[in-house]
Amino acid sequence: MHQSKLFTKTRKEAPKDEVSKNAQLLIRAGFINKEMAGVYSFLPLGLKVLNNINNIIREEMNAIGGQELFLTALQDKKVWEKTNRWSDEVVDNWFKTKLKNDTELGLGFTHEEPLTNLMKDHIKSFRDLPMYPYQIQTKFRNEARAKSGIMRGREFLMKDLYSFSKDENEHNEFYEKAKQAYKNIFSRLGLGDKTFLTFASGGTFSKYSHEFQTLSEAGEDIIYICDKCSVAVNDEIIGEQNSCPECGNIELRKEKSIEVGNIFSLGTKFSDAFELNYNDEKGEEKRVIMGSYGIGPGRAMGTVVEVLSDEKGIVWPESIAPFKVHLLSLGKNEDAQKIYNQLTENGIEVLFDDRDKKAGEKFADFDLIGIPYRVVISEKSLQAGGVEFKKRNSEDSEIISVEDLVSKIKF
Amino acid sequence: MHQSKLFTKTRKEAPKDEVSKNAQLLIRAGFINKEMAGVYSFLPLGLKVLNNINNIIREEMNAIGGQELFLTALQDKKVWEKTNRWSDEVVDNWFKTKLKNDTELGLGFTHEEPLTNLMKDHIKSFRDLPMYPYQIQTKFRNEARAKSGIMRGREFLMKDLYSFSKDENEHNEFYEKAKQAYKNIFSRLGLGDKTFLTFASGGTFSKYSHEFQTLSEAGEDIIYICDKCSVAVNDEIIGEQNSCPECGNIELRKEKSIEVGNIFSLGTKFSDAFELNYNDEKGEEKRVIMGSYGIGPGRAMGTVVEVLSDEKGIVWPESIAPFKVHLLSLGKNEDAQKIYNQLTENGIEVLFDDRDKKAGEKFADFDLIGIPYRVVISEKSLQAGGVEFKKRNSEDSEIISVEDLVSKIKF
Repeated sequence: MHQSKLFTKTRKEAPKDEVSKNAQLLIRAGFINKEMAGVYSFLPLGLKVLNNINNIIREEMNAIGGQELFLTALQDKKVWEKTNRWSDEVVDNWFKTKLKNDTELGLGFTHEEPLTNLMKDHIKSFRDLPMYPYQIQTKFRNEARAKSGIMRGREFLMKDLYSFSKDENEHNEFYEKAKQAYKNIFSRLGLGDKTFLTFASGGTFSKYSHEFQTLSEAGEDIIYICDKCSVAVNDEIIGEQNSCPECGNIELRKEKSIEVGNIFSLGTKFSDAFELNYNDEKGEEKRVIMGSYGIGPGRAMGTVVEVLSDEKGIVWPESIAPFKVHLLSLGKNEDAQKIYNQLTENGIEVLFDDRDKKAGEKFADFDLIGIPYRVVISEKSLQAGGVEFKKRNSEDSEIISVEDLVSKIKF
Repeated sequence: MHQSKLFTKTRKEAPKDEVSKNAQLLIRAGFINKEMAGVYSFLPLGLKVLNNINNIIREEMNAIGGQELFLTALQDKKVWEKTNRWSDEVVDNWFKTKLKNDTELGLGFTHEEPLTNLMKDHIKSFRDLPMYPYQIQTKFRNEARAKSGIMRGREFLMKDLYSFSKDENEHNEFYEKAKQAYKNIFSRLGLGDKTFLTFASGGTFSKYSHEFQTLSEAGEDIIYICDKCSVAVNDEIIGEQNSCPECGNIELRKEKSIEVGNIFSLGTKFSDAFELNYNDEKGEEKRVIMGSYGIGPGRAMGTVVEVLSDEKGIVWPESIAPFKVHLLSLGKNEDAQKIYNQLTENGIEVLFDDRDKKAGEKFADFDLIGIPYRVVISEKSLQAGGVEFKKRNSEDSEIISVEDLVSKIKF
C-alpha cells in the first residue's frame, strides 16, 4: 500500500488523558482511535494486526477441533436468570438496555449461558459429543476504571471457546490439548518467552484453573514463578499454594504480569442450570461436562506493544505485523515504484512511503509504526549499489542489490 | 468437513414464533439460532455464508479504494449532540445504556458522527483527500417490530463506507464507481437479475439518493420499475417522480421488494457539524464533501434465501455456499472417504455426510441445506460405474466416474 493513500497520520503526542503505553503508541502510530475511556476503534493498520492475531488464534482453535460460530451481543434476561447471573448484585459489570416495550436486555460480557442454552437443541446423544464451538466476538464490560488502553476495555474482542464433553476423561484430554494450543498461540505472537502457564483458583469441579500470564511492568496481576518448571502461581492462591504445584519448589520469583488467556474446567455448573444432558451408549441420561477457554485478541495486541516496543516506537513480530516491509523512498526516484511492484508481485506485503516528506520524518515514522523490515532507496543507496536494508529490532544496516532483495526478505 | 462432527442438527420445524421464511429455513437447516425477536446468532454453516458475503463486499470496496477499519458499538453522547441526533425524539431507534457513574452511552445504529469526528485528526490538506474508509461491523437498532428474520434485526452486521471528497466532481465520480461496485456485489451474490437501482429521496445536497431493491414478496418496500431502463422509483417519491428519471417512461410496473443496499450523497451535512475542513492548493479552507454507502450482509443472506429457495429448502449460489459439494455416503463403503480426500486435496470444500442415517434423511438434508453440488456414493452407484452427480437447482442426475468427478466440479 502507498502510504500517501493511507488515511491515518502519525502524530507526536497521544491524547493527554491516555495513560497506558500501549494505547499511547498505538494512537500515535495511527493503529487505533480512542472513542472514550476503555473504548477504542481499530484503524486500517490496527485492524490488520488484529486480524492477523485472530487468524493465528483461529488456526490453533480449528486444529484442536474448534467450530467457529458468532453469538449476539444482546442478551435475554430469562437465559441468565437460570444461573442467577442476571442480577447486578451478582455480576457488577453488566451493561443493560431496554426494548421499546421496556423489556430489559443485557450486553454479553461472556457467553456460557446463551451457548449452553443453544447447545440443548444440538446435543441429545453420545454421538453428538464432544463438541468445541468458539467465536471471536465483541464483549461489553462496564468496568469502573479503564486505564490500561486496549488491554482492558469496556468493549473488546474476545475469542471464547467452550468444550462439551461426555465425561471427565474426555474433558481432561481436551483441556490438555487446549493448553498446548494456547502455548502455540503465544509463541506465534512473539510472547512465548515471557508467558507462563499459571495456576489459579479452580472452583468446585477442579482444584485449579489455568491462566497464561505475560511478564510486564504494565500488568495488573502478580505471579510467582518456579524457574525450574517455568510455571507460575497466581497471587490469589499463593496463600494456600505457596510452592510450585509441579515440583514443590518453594523458591518462587514474584513478578508483575498481564493475564493474556485463561482456561477453566466448568464441570456441570452450566449444564446443571440448563439441564444439558445426553444419552450414553446404554441409553442412560447423563450431564454434559463443560470447559471455557478465553483469549482477548486486543489485549494480546496491547501486550505485544507493552512488551516488545522500544523508546522509538512499536516493534511488531513478523507474524502479526501490518506489513512485512516498510519501503522508504528518499527524494524522487523511479526505482522505488519498481521495487514496490517487484516485492508485491512476490506476495510480500509492503507499506511504501511515497510521501513528499523529509528523510528524518520517514525514519521516525518507520520506528513508530514498527514494521519488521526497512528498505531505503535513495540516490546514495543506488550509488552504493542498491538499497539499504535494516531490521526494526537491529541497529545494523547493509546495502544489498535490488536483485537480492526479494530472496533476502522471503527467507 | 465430516457432517458427523458438525455440532448443528437440521430440524423439521422452526420455532412457532418465527414467521419469516428466511429465518424458518435458516433455523431448520442449522445456519442460525434465534436468541430473541430480531436477534440471531450465526452457527458454523451460517457464519461461513456470512463470511463469504463479507469477502465479496470487501473485495469490491477495496477495488474502489476502500480502507477497512472497525469502529465501536458504544457511542459518546457528546459526539451525537453535534448533529442533534442524540435525542430519542429525533432518532427513535437508539439502544442506550449507562456507565457506572451514570454517563449515558448509545449503541451505534450508524457511524457518520464518530467517523467524521475521527477523520478530523487525519484530514488537513487537499493531499489527504479523497479517502474512503469502511467497516463491516455490528449495528444496534431498537426496532418496534422485528418480524423479517435476518432481513431486519435489532442487532445486525452492516458494511458502511463513507466517502470524503474535495468537491462535488470528485464526489460524483466516486458515487458512480460505488454504484457499479454495488451492482457487482449483487450480481456476485446471485441477485443481479432481480435487483434494481432505485431512485429515492435525496435531501438538500442532491435530488436523489439510490437504493438497490430486490424483487420479493417478502419485501417491506414498494418500487415502480421502468422495464426499458431496468431502473426503479421508490414508493416514497413516486408522487413527485411518477415517470422513469432516465427515459421519462410513465408505464412503470409496481412490485414488492427488499432494500438490499443504499447510497447517499451527504454533502456537507456532517462536515458542517464537525467543521471537517481541508486547505486546498491555494491555502483556502474548504468543507469536505461526504457520502455514505451501506449494505447489510445478513440482510443480503436473508434475501438470497427468500428469493432463491424452493419448496424443499435453501439453494445457495456457488459464490456464497458454505461448501461447494455435499458428498452423501449411503451404506458403509470405504470409497466415500477416498473421494472426500480427493476432492479436498483439490481445494474443493466438501461437506461429507458420513452419518449413520437413512438415504431419505440424507437427501432431505441436502435439499434443506442447499449446497450447490450433490455427489452420492453407494453400492448401486459404484455398480453403475461411479458416483451419482446432481446440482441442487436441477432435477437431472448422472453417473460419472470417480476419475472425472474433480474436473467436473472444478470447471
